[in-house]
Amino acid sequence: MKFEEMLLKRESCRSYLDKAVAKEDLIKIAEAGRLSPSGCNAQPWKFMIVNEPEALEKLRDALVLSNGGTGAPWRDQCSSYIVIVEQKANVMQAVLDYYGDSQRFAQGDLAMACLNMCYQAMDLGLSTCIIGMNDQKKMEANFGIPADNIVRLVLAVGYAEEKEPRRKIRKAFDKVVCFNEWK
Amino acid sequence: MKFEEMLLKRESCRSYLDKAVAKEDLIKIAEAGRLSPSGCNAQPWKFMIVNEPEALEKLRDALVLSNGGTGAPWRDQCSSYIVIVEQKANVMQAVLDYYGDSQRFAQGDLAMACLNMCYQAMDLGLSTCIIGMNDQKKMEANFGIPADNIVRLVLAVGYAEEKEPRRKIRKAFDKVVCFNEWK
Repeated sequence: MKFEEMLLKRESCRSYLDKAVAKEDLIKIAEAGRLSPSGCNAQPWKFMIVNEPEALEKLRDALVLSNGGTGAPWRDQCSSYIVIVEQKANVMQAVLDYYGDSQRFAQGDLAMACLNMCYQAMDLGLSTCIIGMNDQKKMEANFGIPADNIVRLVLAVGYAEEKEPRRKIRKAFDKVVCFNEWK
Repeated sequence: MKFEEMLLKRESCRSYLDKAVAKEDLIKIAEAGRLSPSGCNAQPWKFMIVNEPEALEKLRDALVLSNGGTGAPWRDQCSSYIVIVEQKANVMQAVLDYYGDSQRFAQGDLAMACLNMCYQAMDLGLSTCIIGMNDQKKMEANFGIPADNIVRLVLAVGYAEEKEPRRKIRKAFDKVVCFNEWK
């Protein structure tokens, strides 16, 4: 699919058809994450594909926060997820010297990988939702993810009903773009 | 351009031709940032396009860190930049309640906008480099950017010599992807 169409049409899907995503497709999507750019090419990420019943139960549990809230009330409808986990970034010494933080770019790196996965999914006829909130402690308990490996995003992947994309609601161009001076 | 081609061919450009980027193209690129997804649709970003001599001088100065280091030793070659600035994110109360941090998703949001801008540039025949390091204090002093507006990324945009893309160096698939359990 052409980028222009993807940019204009990609949107969060919160209602999935009861149709399984092929493993080959999930692999292609994870591959798009793997090929993504990252600060110092550190690739500080791990992608855990979840599409089997027992693992899905564990994941859905971790999408409900300790306070009972959730960013994915529709989680039972979707049966394929990619858990996007931040790992220690092996960045250049210059970054450590200046920022004193190996993870300075990591959140952004993971998000770029996630967007690439959204687009790859779209190219395969699939829809996605980026879930920002999860219960890190449950992720650790349910999957044995180490405490210093932060689950940043969970990407839901599945088939959506075909319909016209929603109108994008965004701030006006003049509010977010300025030229040659800060305005 | 097709997404598949973009994913495989997009790479950092650190050597630019002496050829100006049209303002309309920079506007289209910023527009791709504006249309990007973000946590709670907060759009916690501002994009400052820099392509005029005086502003370029200020920007190039801020790409040299206080310790003399820089992520863009080639900065004089490139004459169009987009400065990607993090602003306070107006997220849902549930995010504030759970994470106590309005900026929980902001770095990722800006990075997704940046990747969209890279792809939009590519679609226009342009090359990019995502510069992660900058001197925040100089950004504030040179442009009057407020101290609570963090310059996260600077995107260099320009024309590259035509040549074959470099081979992507990435961790092996099995090192970064696991299935249904943490491995």
